[in-house]
Amino acid sequence: MPLGERVEGKGESRYCGVETEFDDDVCRLLSFNLSSAGFDFVVAPLMDPSYRPSLVQVQNDTSPVLPVAGSDLVLSPSQWSSHVVGKISPWIDLDSEDEILRMDSETTLKQEIAWASHLSLQACLLPSPKGASCANYARCVNQILQGLSNMQLWLRIPLLKSDDDSPDVDSDRLMDSWELWNSFRLICEHHSQLSLALDILSTLPSANSIERWFGEPVRAAILCTDAFLTNTRGYPCLSKRHQKLITGFFNYSVQVVISGKPLHEIHGATTGSAVNHIDENTNSMQRHPLRSYLEYVGYLYQRMEPLSEQERIELGYRDFLQAPLQPLMDNLEAQTYETFEKDSVKYIQYQRAICKALLDRVPDADISAVTTVLMVVGAGRGPLVRASLQAAEETGRKLKVYAVEKNPNAVVTLHSLVKLEGWENVVSIVSCDMRLWNAPEKADILVSELLGSFGDNELSPECLDGAQRFLKEDGISIPSSYTSFIQPITASKLYNDVKSHKDLVHFETAYVVKLHSVAKLAPSKPVFTFNHPDYSTKKSNQRYTKLQFAIPQDTGSAMVHGFAGYFDATLYKDVHLGIEPSTATPNMFSWEYVLPCGKLQPLASENSGVILDS
Amino acid sequence: MPLGERVEGKGESRYCGVETEFDDDVCRLLSFNLSSAGFDFVVAPLMDPSYRPSLVQVQNDTSPVLPVAGSDLVLSPSQWSSHVVGKISPWIDLDSEDEILRMDSETTLKQEIAWASHLSLQACLLPSPKGASCANYARCVNQILQGLSNMQLWLRIPLLKSDDDSPDVDSDRLMDSWELWNSFRLICEHHSQLSLALDILSTLPSANSIERWFGEPVRAAILCTDAFLTNTRGYPCLSKRHQKLITGFFNYSVQVVISGKPLHEIHGATTGSAVNHIDENTNSMQRHPLRSYLEYVGYLYQRMEPLSEQERIELGYRDFLQAPLQPLMDNLEAQTYETFEKDSVKYIQYQRAICKALLDRVPDADISAVTTVLMVVGAGRGPLVRASLQAAEETGRKLKVYAVEKNPNAVVTLHSLVKLEGWENVVSIVSCDMRLWNAPEKADILVSELLGSFGDNELSPECLDGAQRFLKEDGISIPSSYTSFIQPITASKLYNDVKSHKDLVHFETAYVVKLHSVAKLAPSKPVFTFNHPDYSTKKSNQRYTKLQFAIPQDTGSAMVHGFAGYFDATLYKDVHLGIEPSTATPNMFSWEYVLPCGKLQPLASENSGVILDS
Repeated sequence: MPLGERVEGKGESRYCGVETEFDDDVCRLLSFNLSSAGFDFVVAPLMDPSYRPSLVQVQNDTSPVLPVAGSDLVLSPSQWSSHVVGKISPWIDLDSEDEILRMDSETTLKQEIAWASHLSLQACLLPSPKGASCANYARCVNQILQGLSNMQLWLRIPLLKSDDDSPDVDSDRLMDSWELWNSFRLICEHHSQLSLALDILSTLPSANSIERWFGEPVRAAILCTDAFLTNTRGYPCLSKRHQKLITGFFNYSVQVVISGKPLHEIHGATTGSAVNHIDENTNSMQRHPLRSYLEYVGYLYQRMEPLSEQERIELGYRDFLQAPLQPLMDNLEAQTYETFEKDSVKYIQYQRAICKALLDRVPDADISAVTTVLMVVGAGRGPLVRASLQAAEETGRKLKVYAVEKNPNAVVTLHSLVKLEGWENVVSIVSCDMRLWNAPEKADILVSELLGSFGDNELSPECLDGAQRFLKEDGISIPSSYTSFIQPITASKLYNDVKSHKDLVHFETAYVVKLHSVAKLAPSKPVFTFNHPDYSTKKSNQRYTKLQFAIPQDTGSAMVHGFAGYFDATLYKDVHLGIEPSTATPNMFSWEYVLPCGKLQPLASENSGVILDS
Repeated sequence: MPLGERVEGKGESRYCGVETEFDDDVCRLLSFNLSSAGFDFVVAPLMDPSYRPSLVQVQNDTSPVLPVAGSDLVLSPSQWSSHVVGKISPWIDLDSEDEILRMDSETTLKQEIAWASHLSLQACLLPSPKGASCANYARCVNQILQGLSNMQLWLRIPLLKSDDDSPDVDSDRLMDSWELWNSFRLICEHHSQLSLALDILSTLPSANSIERWFGEPVRAAILCTDAFLTNTRGYPCLSKRHQKLITGFFNYSVQVVISGKPLHEIHGATTGSAVNHIDENTNSMQRHPLRSYLEYVGYLYQRMEPLSEQERIELGYRDFLQAPLQPLMDNLEAQTYETFEKDSVKYIQYQRAICKALLDRVPDADISAVTTVLMVVGAGRGPLVRASLQAAEETGRKLKVYAVEKNPNAVVTLHSLVKLEGWENVVSIVSCDMRLWNAPEKADILVSELLGSFGDNELSPECLDGAQRFLKEDGISIPSSYTSFIQPITASKLYNDVKSHKDLVHFETAYVVKLHSVAKLAPSKPVFTFNHPDYSTKKSNQRYTKLQFAIPQDTGSAMVHGFAGYFDATLYKDVHLGIEPSTATPNMFSWEYVLPCGKLQPLASENSGVILDS
């Protein structure tokens, strides 16, 4: 029974699991934990915990039967795959000094995963490495991953980081479990089927340190009963910080798994427990000992805010690499124009900027005498033409508009728009590239919307340089300037998507992405700024810069998979438009840019921060 | 309105289109042909047919507006893409000697396809090449294809082949339109977005010649009204051969488009036409002149046989490349065993073969004295163990069974099966590779099912060679022999799927495929045969052969994209099992094998046939 009705955006997180002991009757195990208790899946050992391959006698060349919990036929294929996550024997230690234990561990690990594959399970939970040195374990898992069809392997890692930075601490003591995860996954070469199950303990590390994990492939949060507090009525509950963490996991499609012994005895909570004569039938209907933990998690799930309209639209695009548009080289399609035109906030900002420019340019006294010449360069299907005419109406200024557009298909729409709206006397349509047009007169105001998610990446500077020939010397360009920004991020999903192409060119492509499952490791910094018009004699659009980012002290180490890119544009004076997180225009439908760490290996950074050439 | 309710297996073919003239009011065009007449889409010219770029004056550097039928906004994006196929101007001739016409043609072709892309149409219909020489046309289309996002280009080709083979025919005369298509698509390098629209004329070429097209990417059959006959009531109908062709197209998801002037005037067919005073309202409800042709096509669609149960199961696998299993190297998964075990016909054949072998080995007189030792090598989850025990019961023979299986996961199921069925005293389970097992006694009968779709391709010969050590000298192997077969095929869809990997290794992989959209060009021929047991001293499983296929004289030329592979196995004496088309076991759930033409370019063969090294 899922935690709640709402599916959208939560993905898998509405299913809650429970970690169980070995039971050689899997049907009974499912019936006890799922049908009657309400969990959606079990994380259950697949093999008898007392099994050690070295203790088994081989007779007459034939192998013994595996000590598994029943045959594949006791459940249907779909029950196995949707209700059971295989828990690999926790005793295995592939980096042990004890050779027999080490050999037994490797054999058992491979047998258990082969059995799980045989059953087409969706995932197996790998036990935490026993110590900081886990090279043989990781090597063996990497070998297994090469031959695995679809199954995910969840490496269990405690969410643990000591804040103690004093140099005299015991060097054997694990300081930061992220380091353990990182060395394991590096040996497994960022394999996309290796992911994480985080053990949530009663104490949590700092917020910055937790934030790192949201860019890593966390699939499950294993919530131990001793991480719970007790409320005044004796029920389990979580601290505010734990609540926030679990809600965060829900938003990132991370599934919760309840684990451990019941520590909160609820008496008289169900009517059934008041009955004295317990026969077999009511016994099987007995309240599950972890039921109240599940109910609390369900309560957290259900009280989450519903998604906004805009979030719902963007849902399908989250963390999905899109090749950026090249509107100068390619003509946009009608559906692309339609998407852009829906971004009403953007055109409201443009209209505000044009109003201010018109008021500055034409004093009230000259209203009837002066006609302002406004040119929309890159008019598309006309949204800026409309915004300009509305600004003229709002300010009472007289306007003459040239709509310059190089895409002959959009020009068809412009003509039909002008005819439909009766703008024939005000608007002239010019079907021409702005860089080539011989304008019949000069403009007071030049309006354009040529910016990409990273500012100049759709060649706005080059286009506007070509158009400023026909701007009056004291004329205004809207936008008057724009700046790009970058920010280092952990983004394992995007990194793997880029890597799957197995070539360099995809690592050197910048993508448009609705960022979601990423960790932003440091505040963004400005990169390049362009001003318009620019009459300096030695100007160039070539740029080079070197930036240094400082990761907060308490974050710990982190993986930089790439950089998020943003822009901020000054349209006119105080009217701006942008997506840089700290100053972003609210409700604007515009996506971030991702620059993967091209030729570099991803950088595992130390606290001291990373130096980057941009 | 689709032609019929049944969706399954017909795919797009339930939608029927109509070819129209240019109309500058697209809304009216759709309302006349779709809403009131019942067609699902129009194939309509996108630009004014009188337009010639060379006649247009360019003024003041600005281009004129394109003479298209209304702006993109007159229909919604989904109306454009689901109801309109763009018909490229038929006057274009990119291989004309007239330079102005040639230049105008290239400009118009590019503008029209750019406009169709702007509208996100699903397809455009390219006019037939004007003559046998179409190199510049194809070059230009290939260039366009490189930048096309999702749109299909349907090249219009008449379904035409002269049967005249006399050498003195006019060399300019087009003999076989397949040659035209082939040279065009070769220049376009088999681009997956280039497909075909076949014009169906009143006379049809030979059946063999038509068959070739079913392996080519035919998307539409344009049915001209003059291809119709007239039935006794004056209604249009088709000849038997035409009916068969159209039904064939339906089965291959080819859409029908009605084209041409109405040639069958139906009087008094609708009640509406009896009314005398026709006002504007009833006028618009007037019967569409091509309505009776649509109705006839709908009648053909609806009278098709429904798909069988087995066809429905196989539907999702048609023409889909599956990497072949390697059961010797990899252990099969539970779901794979489950699929195989469903193939009841196979096990009925095995049981028949085992019965015959038991009867031959143990005369009726010895029934109570003799126990036959039967070994199932590769027992999996036990279907052949069951078939053997049923054969013993059917014949009254006493049996001792060894079930040898190397997959430890399947051995778990075997143990649970034996326990469940109470077979402990009859069946011994051996968890071991048959090539390594030291059998405690020798077998009378060795039963195996190690064959792949191409016979030996899952290493059955090597496994059985290893197992015959423990077969008595006069013992029986079931199967006793098997033979592989191949057959040259046209299979453009599969060829493109292999090609999309852009590497040699995929061209050198043999795939398992449920073949559907392929043309079988010649009867299959046997390739390699293996016999078991084989006690010859110098035996080897190495094989080499050279085969020659003769394509029927009236087929014409054809493209060999690869070979379909089959097997036929003799289980015991007259009991066989196989998928070779001429002798296939009915209702067996087993798929063909495809061997793509590896390092070769696909072969365009002449009538004389092709010589192939296999």
